[in-house]
Amino acid sequence: MATVRMIEYAEASAEVRSVYDDIMAVRKTDWINNFWKVLANHPPTLRRTWESIKEVMAPGTLDPLTKQMIYIAVSATNACEYCVRSHTFAARAKGMSEAMLGELMAVVGMANETNALANLYQVEVDERFMAAGATPPKPAARRRRPAGARAQRRPARNTGRRSR
Amino acid sequence: MATVRMIEYAEASAEVRSVYDDIMAVRKTDWINNFWKVLANHPPTLRRTWESIKEVMAPGTLDPLTKQMIYIAVSATNACEYCVRSHTFAARAKGMSEAMLGELMAVVGMANETNALANLYQVEVDERFMAAGATPPKPAARRRRPAGARAQRRPARNTGRRSR
Amino acid sequence: MATVRMIEYAEASAEVRSVYDDIMAVRKTDWINNFWKVLANHPPTLRRTWESIKEVMAPGTLDPLTKQMIYIAVSATNACEYCVRSHTFAARAKGMSEAMLGELMAVVGMANETNALANLYQVEVDERFMAAGATPPKPAARRRRPAGARAQRRPARNTGRRSR
Amino acid sequence: MATVRMIEYAEASAEVRSVYDDIMAVRKTDWINNFWKVLANHPPTLRRTWESIKEVMAPGTLDPLTKQMIYIAVSATNACEYCVRSHTFAARAKGMSEAMLGELMAVVGMANETNALANLYQVEVDERFMAAGATPPKPAARRRRPAGARAQRRPARNTGRRSR
Amino acid sequence: MATVRMIEYAEASAEVRSVYDDIMAVRKTDWINNFWKVLANHPPTLRRTWESIKEVMAPGTLDPLTKQMIYIAVSATNACEYCVRSHTFAARAKGMSEAMLGELMAVVGMANETNALANLYQVEVDERFMAAGATPPKPAARRRRPAGARAQRRPARNTGRRSR
Amino acid sequence: MATVRMIEYAEASAEVRSVYDDIMAVRKTDWINNFWKVLANHPPTLRRTWESIKEVMAPGTLDPLTKQMIYIAVSATNACEYCVRSHTFAARAKGMSEAMLGELMAVVGMANETNALANLYQVEVDERFMAAGATPPKPAARRRRPAGARAQRRPARNTGRRSR
Repeated sequence: MATVRMIEYAEASAEVRSVYDDIMAVRKTDWINNFWKVLANHPPTLRRTWESIKEVMAPGTLDPLTKQMIYIAVSATNACEYCVRSHTFAARAKGMSEAMLGELMAVVGMANETNALANLYQVEVDERFMAAGATPPKPAARRRRPAGARAQRRPARNTGRRSR
Repeated sequence: MATVRMIEYAEASAEVRSVYDDIMAVRKTDWINNFWKVLANHPPTLRRTWESIKEVMAPGTLDPLTKQMIYIAVSATNACEYCVRSHTFAARAKGMSEAMLGELMAVVGMANETNALANLYQVEVDERFMAAGATPPKPAARRRRPAGARAQRRPARNTGRRSR
Repeated sequence: MATVRMIEYAEASAEVRSVYDDIMAVRKTDWINNFWKVLANHPPTLRRTWESIKEVMAPGTLDPLTKQMIYIAVSATNACEYCVRSHTFAARAKGMSEAMLGELMAVVGMANETNALANLYQVEVDERFMAAGATPPKPAARRRRPAGARAQRRPARNTGRRSR
Repeated sequence: MATVRMIEYAEASAEVRSVYDDIMAVRKTDWINNFWKVLANHPPTLRRTWESIKEVMAPGTLDPLTKQMIYIAVSATNACEYCVRSHTFAARAKGMSEAMLGELMAVVGMANETNALANLYQVEVDERFMAAGATPPKPAARRRRPAGARAQRRPARNTGRRSR
Repeated sequence: MATVRMIEYAEASAEVRSVYDDIMAVRKTDWINNFWKVLANHPPTLRRTWESIKEVMAPGTLDPLTKQMIYIAVSATNACEYCVRSHTFAARAKGMSEAMLGELMAVVGMANETNALANLYQVEVDERFMAAGATPPKPAARRRRPAGARAQRRPARNTGRRSR
Repeated sequence: MATVRMIEYAEASAEVRSVYDDIMAVRKTDWINNFWKVLANHPPTLRRTWESIKEVMAPGTLDPLTKQMIYIAVSATNACEYCVRSHTFAARAKGMSEAMLGELMAVVGMANETNALANLYQVEVDERFMAAGATPPKPAARRRRPAGARAQRRPARNTGRRSR
C-alpha cells in the first residue's frame, strides 16, 4: 500500500483524467497502473512525469526495447521493486526474451561488481579515457578554440604528465 | 592515485602477464588500462574478473554496444567515475553516437527520477506486474504444477483480492 | 572535464540559446553553469530538464531554500559532487546559514545511518505506519469504499495479526 | 519480520527500559515502534541512536517538520521502506500536507534525475561553485591567512587555469 | 576543497579543542584529519560523531581491524572517496595486508554483483531464511509464547502456504 | 515471487543440475536456495556466479565468517533484502553471535552516516591518506621508478601545496 491513496479515474479531476486519457491512448490500453494513480495526488508531477516519460521512451536513435532494458538496469541498481517489475513487464511486451533478460542481468551484475572494485581501490582514470571527453562531435568548432580554452579543459589531475 | 600501486607488465608475475596478454589479444590492443593494473595486486580477482567480463560482454542476444550502454547506465547510477569514463570510451569505440549517448542519458535520468518517486510514495506493485513473473517460458512445465504450488507463487500482498 | 564538450552560447543553436536565455532571465544572471552547457549536447533533454527544474524549484507550499536543502540531502546521499556543490552554492544564495547547513548535514547523516540499521535488521513496518498510507485527504471519498476495498488496502504482511 | 527478535518492554532489561521510557516521554506517547524494539538487541546502539536522534531532530535553525521531510528525501533515495513510512507518518503528525508531500516528492525526483545526468556526463564543477567553499563564515579569520594558504585552498583542478 | 572552511586548532573554540584533544589522545597522535576540521563547523555534530565513532570502533566481539574493513566495504559501495582512503589508511595501520585488502575487495565486488542480480530478478526470500529471524537468543523467552504469537512472526508472504 | 520462474532440480537441464550438485556438495546440504533456482534461467550466469562465490567466499587471509559479515554490510547498504537475509542466515551458521551482529550493525550504520557527512561537506582527502596509496608492498620495485613517474602518481589536487 502506498503512503498516499490511489486516485481512480472515476474520482479524478479533469486535469488528472486528461493525463490518464493520454496514457491510455499512447499505450493503446484501457488500464492505468498504480504509479500514475499515486502521482495523481500531485497533478503537476503527474503531468510533467508523463510528458517526460512519453518523450524519453519514444523511439529515437535507441529503440524502445533497449530503453526499457536500460530502465531495468537502473531500477535493479537502485533496488526499486516497483520499477524493476513494471519495466520488466514492459520490456517483455516489447519482445524481450528470457535470454535477453539473462544477458541484461549478467551485465548489470558485472557493472555493479566492477563499480565497487574501482571505488574500493580508487582506480585513477587513464589519460586516454579523460581525453575521450574532448573528442569533439564538431572538429571544426573545436579548432576555433584558443590554446587557453583547451588548457582549461585539461583535467588538473593529469597536469603531472607534462613532466614527461 | 589508487590506494594500491599499479602493476606494470614489466614487473608482473607470469600469472598476471598471462591475463594481460589475453586482454590485449581479445581487445586487439597493446595497452592495459589502470583498472587491470590495480586488480593485479590480487591475481585471483584479476583473472576471475577478466574471464567474467570477457564472457559477459561478448556478443549474444544483446550486441556489445547495447551492453556497453547498460554498463554506463549502472555506473552513472552508482557514481563510479572510472567506470563511466572507461565504458563511455568503449561505447564510442563501438559506434555510440553523441545522439545515442544523449538518449541513454535521458533514460538513465528518468529511471533514477521515477525510482525515487516510486520509493517515496511506496507504490504498491500492480497485480498484473506480479503476474508477469509467473509467465512461464515453458507453459507445459507449468501445467504440471498442482494448485497448491500455484498458490505458493501468488504474492501474499495480493491475498486480499480474494475478498472481491 | 565532462565526457562531452560544453556548448558555449556563441556556438549554440537557436534552440539551445533560447533555453540559455530563459535560464539567465529566470535567474537574473548573465552566466550559464557547466551542467546546462553539457546537457546542451542533447537539446531535448536540456529543454525538458530546465522546464522541469524551473517548475519544481519555484516557490510553492515549500519555500525555495527548503527545496535547495532537500536537493543537497539527496545529492550527498548519491555522492554527486557537482550537485552537492552547485546546490550548496544556490542554498547559500537563498540565505542558508552555516548553522542551517550544519543541521542539514546532521539530519542527512542520521537518516543514512538509520536507513542502514533498518535495512540490516530488516525491521518490519509497524501496522500504524502502514495505516498512515490509508489516511485519506478526502475522508468522504473513503467512506464511500466498501469493506472489501479496505481489506484490499490492508498490507498482507499484517493479515496474520490475531490482535484484531 | 526482522532478522532479530523484537524486545518488548515487558521482557526488556533495565537499560533498555530506560531508553524506552525516554522515547515515550519525549514523544508524549505510550507506544514504542519496531525500530527501537529491534535495536534493543544491541543496547549500546539503542541508547546511542536514540540520544543522537533526539539531539538531531530537535528544533534548531531548521524546524522539526523540515527535518522530517529531509529524512524522507534521504530514505526514498536509499530505498528504505521502513524509514520512508515511519518518517512520512512523523512528518504528517507535524503538519505536512499532501501538497507539501507532493512538492517534496517532486524535488526528490528531480534531484535523483539530475544527480544521474551530472554523473553520466561527468560535468566538471564550475570554478565559482568551488569558490563557494572558500566563503568564510568569519571573514576576519580569513584575512589573517597568507597568500600561500589561500593558494592551498584553491582546488588543484582549477590551479592550471590562471597560471597558464 | 570542502564546501565549508576547515577549523584549525589554533582558531578553534574551547568546545572544538576539547574534541580535538580527545581525538589525538585516543589515537595517540598529534594530528587531526580534515574530516574533523570540517565537522568542527557544527560543534554538536563534531562531538556527537566523535563520541559515536570512539564507541563503535573500539574493540568488542569484533576486532578493530575487522571493523575498519567493514567500514571500507560500506564506503566503497557508497562511492565515498574520502572514507575509502581514510579507512584504508587506518586498516593498514592496524595490520591489514595487501592480501587481506585483495580478499576484502573480492567480497565487496561479489556482494555488489549478487545484490544487483537478486534485485533484478526480485528473488523471493526462502522460508528458512525468514525463519532465521525468529531464532531467539533466549529460547526460554520464546517457549513462553503461545502458538498465536509464533504465527504472527511467520512472514505473511508465507502464511498462505500451509493455510491453503 | 521472482520476475522469472524458479528452476527446480527435477526439471533442470544437465548443465544446471551439475551446478546444483556442486552447490549441495560444497555446502554439505541437500537444499538449493531460491537465488540459484532463479539464476538457473541463465545457465552461464548460474555457473559463473557459483564458481566465483565458491572461490571468493572460501577461507583465505580472511575467515569465512568475516567474509559473510562484509557481505551483510554491503547488502544492507544496497537495501537488498534477499542478500541481507540469506547472508545473515549464513553468518549465523558460521557462528556469528547476536553481539557480533549488533556490532556489525553499529559499524555499518556509522559508515553510512559518515559517508554522507563527507559527501555533503565534500571533505578534501588529507595528503597523508593519498600518500598511503603509494606505500609500495615492494619498496625495491618503487625505487626503480624515475622522478617523472613519481610526479605522475602525485594527485593533482595536492600539487598546489606550497607547504612542501
